[in-house]
Amino acid sequence: MNRYKAPVRDMKFALYDVIGADKLYEKLGIEHASRDLLDAVMDEAARFNETVLAPLNAVGDEHGCRFDKATGAVTTPPGYKEAYAQFVDGGWSALTAPEKFGGQDLPESFGAALKEMIDAACLSWGNYPLLSHGATEALKHHGEDWQQEVFLKRIISGEWTGTMCLTEPHCGSDLGLLKTKAEPQDDGSYAVSGTKIFITGGEHDFTDNIVHLVLARLPDAPAGTKGISLFIVPKLRTARDGSTGERNAVRCGSIEHKMGIHGSSTCVMNFDGAQGYLIGQPNKGLNAMFTMMNTARLAVGLQGLGLIDRSYQNALAYARDRLQGRSLSGAKNPDKPADPLIVHPDIRRMLLTGKALGEGSRMLALHAATLVDVIERSRDADERKQADTLLGFLTPIVKGMLTEWGIECTNHALQVFGGHGYVREWGMEQLARDARITTIYEGTTGIQALDLLGRKTMQLQGAGLQMFMKMIQAFCTEHAKDESLTEFVLPLAEIAKQWGELTMEVGKKAMADADEVGAASVDYLYYSGYVALAYWWARAVVAAEAGSHGEGFKAAKRETARFYFARILPRTQAHAAAMRSGAGNLLGLDEAHFDS
Amino acid sequence: MNRYKAPVRDMKFALYDVIGADKLYEKLGIEHASRDLLDAVMDEAARFNETVLAPLNAVGDEHGCRFDKATGAVTTPPGYKEAYAQFVDGGWSALTAPEKFGGQDLPESFGAALKEMIDAACLSWGNYPLLSHGATEALKHHGEDWQQEVFLKRIISGEWTGTMCLTEPHCGSDLGLLKTKAEPQDDGSYAVSGTKIFITGGEHDFTDNIVHLVLARLPDAPAGTKGISLFIVPKLRTARDGSTGERNAVRCGSIEHKMGIHGSSTCVMNFDGAQGYLIGQPNKGLNAMFTMMNTARLAVGLQGLGLIDRSYQNALAYARDRLQGRSLSGAKNPDKPADPLIVHPDIRRMLLTGKALGEGSRMLALHAATLVDVIERSRDADERKQADTLLGFLTPIVKGMLTEWGIECTNHALQVFGGHGYVREWGMEQLARDARITTIYEGTTGIQALDLLGRKTMQLQGAGLQMFMKMIQAFCTEHAKDESLTEFVLPLAEIAKQWGELTMEVGKKAMADADEVGAASVDYLYYSGYVALAYWWARAVVAAEAGSHGEGFKAAKRETARFYFARILPRTQAHAAAMRSGAGNLLGLDEAHFDS
Repeated sequence: MNRYKAPVRDMKFALYDVIGADKLYEKLGIEHASRDLLDAVMDEAARFNETVLAPLNAVGDEHGCRFDKATGAVTTPPGYKEAYAQFVDGGWSALTAPEKFGGQDLPESFGAALKEMIDAACLSWGNYPLLSHGATEALKHHGEDWQQEVFLKRIISGEWTGTMCLTEPHCGSDLGLLKTKAEPQDDGSYAVSGTKIFITGGEHDFTDNIVHLVLARLPDAPAGTKGISLFIVPKLRTARDGSTGERNAVRCGSIEHKMGIHGSSTCVMNFDGAQGYLIGQPNKGLNAMFTMMNTARLAVGLQGLGLIDRSYQNALAYARDRLQGRSLSGAKNPDKPADPLIVHPDIRRMLLTGKALGEGSRMLALHAATLVDVIERSRDADERKQADTLLGFLTPIVKGMLTEWGIECTNHALQVFGGHGYVREWGMEQLARDARITTIYEGTTGIQALDLLGRKTMQLQGAGLQMFMKMIQAFCTEHAKDESLTEFVLPLAEIAKQWGELTMEVGKKAMADADEVGAASVDYLYYSGYVALAYWWARAVVAAEAGSHGEGFKAAKRETARFYFARILPRTQAHAAAMRSGAGNLLGLDEAHFDS
Repeated sequence: MNRYKAPVRDMKFALYDVIGADKLYEKLGIEHASRDLLDAVMDEAARFNETVLAPLNAVGDEHGCRFDKATGAVTTPPGYKEAYAQFVDGGWSALTAPEKFGGQDLPESFGAALKEMIDAACLSWGNYPLLSHGATEALKHHGEDWQQEVFLKRIISGEWTGTMCLTEPHCGSDLGLLKTKAEPQDDGSYAVSGTKIFITGGEHDFTDNIVHLVLARLPDAPAGTKGISLFIVPKLRTARDGSTGERNAVRCGSIEHKMGIHGSSTCVMNFDGAQGYLIGQPNKGLNAMFTMMNTARLAVGLQGLGLIDRSYQNALAYARDRLQGRSLSGAKNPDKPADPLIVHPDIRRMLLTGKALGEGSRMLALHAATLVDVIERSRDADERKQADTLLGFLTPIVKGMLTEWGIECTNHALQVFGGHGYVREWGMEQLARDARITTIYEGTTGIQALDLLGRKTMQLQGAGLQMFMKMIQAFCTEHAKDESLTEFVLPLAEIAKQWGELTMEVGKKAMADADEVGAASVDYLYYSGYVALAYWWARAVVAAEAGSHGEGFKAAKRETARFYFARILPRTQAHAAAMRSGAGNLLGLDEAHFDS
């Protein structure tokens, strides 16, 4: 019942017309990434996602994963394994990987568009390749040659998958508490022991081997986050020559029963002296982990976007079909018993919220992904460094806001369906349930907000903010005299100015009291997200005017931008007021009296 | 894992200290409702809800209702039926019903507090008595004597239950489209035929007989909403003398599989020439229906409140227990490996949002419920009329906002648990799933908003608004000189002034274009809800100061009010901007281009 059509036109618009990714690819010397090739690949990706993955979404929710306690095996929902085989056969797992590791070397920003399709089509299934992708990043940047040969190449080819094993029962956001131990062995390997929880894809039936990247402590490691190392622990014992042997001492102990993403296995993983290999430097595991994590954070942001788009598409179709009530300004459908839902302004408000936040998020996320391409491929060290700074600033915004908007918009879309939205068969409630994990895993919204305000803004003296602000200022200056854009350029310039002022204010307060950071951070994150989207929507109007997508498309971009500026952007004022109110109203109440 | 303790102290505070319900009961001559009696009943209700109903919440979610296609029977989750028997034995079903129908004649506002407990303890179970309560209201006000004797008394005693059969497959919010037919029979009864969907408690195993109140059309009825009549259709054929016979021609065809409230049966009901009795006047069914509906709308608002409170209690307990991370301003728990979550300002922001919206909602809802008592019991016709006007104005606010806040707060509470919030065993995700229906049934938020702005404000020339505004002004005047209240009184007076201005502005625009009502309505609803809560929070501070609940309690009220004014009330400014932006940005985009 719940349909999905990949938004190929809008993806191309965002990537090429707005962001100019094609010019970037040329500049970066990615000669094989011609528009013709990319367009053909995108069309093929749309076909794969619409016909192979999208139909599995409801199936996966209904069946979930099954756990066999006797063997520790996990069976994924019907069709998942076969879809993975098709995914691997089609070369999708290797799409953006470097050629030297057997990849097709296409840009990460292009891959991000296809990633959005997977998330919209079947988020639960998409988590398996998502985790593999995170693992490849760590192996690519920190792995020894033999590790890349044995593990990285096989994850890229899709023969094996990867996981990230961070969380333990007593530590989630606070990794300094972790207890898993790694004992050096005579052969240079390590014996890894401990329990990890919430391990996505920790066990499944897609592949024989699974490559776990595990955070653990060496015997002499300092306490806290400075004593954490990263280890490769394969499901099958794997020698340095790549040969695999018997089962390693790692086993899935159970799987979680969750609100949603039933098709993703979420595993308790027990390591009992399992064979592991150190990756990167001892006690520097968090560095390597952040390599995985940043990739995964952008990827989870895309999950929010995918769900926004799929839920929007279905709500729109329903709002056009369903006849209910009459337009308050007179019948629009006089020969039928009622008007379609879409005549009602409030239905349009919910739909346009999905459209504005969805298409806006797409530009924001794809732009962030182009920075990954610059970091990986530019020959100019300064350019790479700048891109890295800006990406660091944008990553918590993409992760934090696209997932919060994902929750908001899937809920609006459900609401458009009325009572039918609450019934399972329409598939809308599944999208809302699936969305609910995205603000939690790979760092909660609170963690993203602290990263944005505390680390990426205050510790780095606003370097990333200033770069983004310059982009806004350049845009506003360039279009200052175009009267047809005044309605966007003026409020954008104003809100950007306030953004700078607020940052200074909060920064000042935080110097005196560190709790001011935590008190302002989530509102600052939201505020920043809305400013960023205002910028991208203004650019979308300009790009649509200049492009060749037709009058309807131009009108849609302009009207959606108007809606965004008039009805969404003012949310910033509530966040500004909350931020300015300071930490006192959060910390004033004694803990003992919260239940008074 | 998921606990519930009835908030008896805060209920008493809201009812007596803030609202002065005890004085009202005295004034209305409800002599038997002494504080001693009421306190004893409330304690007993707390015990029943904490020990009998609360443990059924997870069970009901896990098991759900079972439908037997062969017989059309529905089996409720284990323990539900037995709890209902205890409920009836305890006299709870008759608590607020008039003595002449076998009730205990306690005030509705007192009953509302106990209703909140039921919703918090086990919302799915609570839907069965909720629907009975709606049916008793229709029978009380519109039933003939024999109908009251035969049906009303038995619903009140709990021997039978009631339902409301409104929705049909093609009509939800738009009742004018309904097709169910009622043919007059020689014996004065009617043969009712048609299909109703989304019928809560349409079939179950609590009682032998179920009294369906069914909207249908007489043969000669005018089209649209002016041709709808209300009928009593019992599950068992029931004669005027009260004797029951064989099964009536009404049968449950299936039950829905839903996102949540799994323990509530949501039935497709097929009427196939079923024996029915007209209740009230022919073609005036919507009047009688609104009697049920208004009761049910307040009741659904209480569901939102119940879920806010239960989710808050659990999130608070978790935030105190769970050690994770260090306070940014230095360790608060230096001898432990980490500080409890509650030291983090953002965790407090989420908790305080639940506390502020929950306790604020309690005052708002209980005050609305006292108006029901005035309407039913005052001997002063003018006072009754005024109370009716104010209640009409407040009902969409209570229904609309308490349920929207229910969704927001259950989600915050889930977020406090991090990944554990997403896992079923903690029970937090159930509360979020259960909450999600409340903004849909008994009229969506969009419908509440149109009722508030279109009908209750514009059509009635702001009569209800003016009454509420006078209450605010009286409060502000009374406390204008109290410097300790300035931080609340000043912003309250300001926001009330803006409320009036906004209402005028929107009203003016709407005269010229009816779509302006629909374009502003939901933002107007939210705005109104936040103003109303500001009023109640300011009163709470005053009442706490004057009361005898201790220093901790006073501090909690004052600090939570501060939080509310500083961090929640500013949301009004985003809604004001959206309202002021007008209908153009919603209607400007051609329907054809929504997917451009």
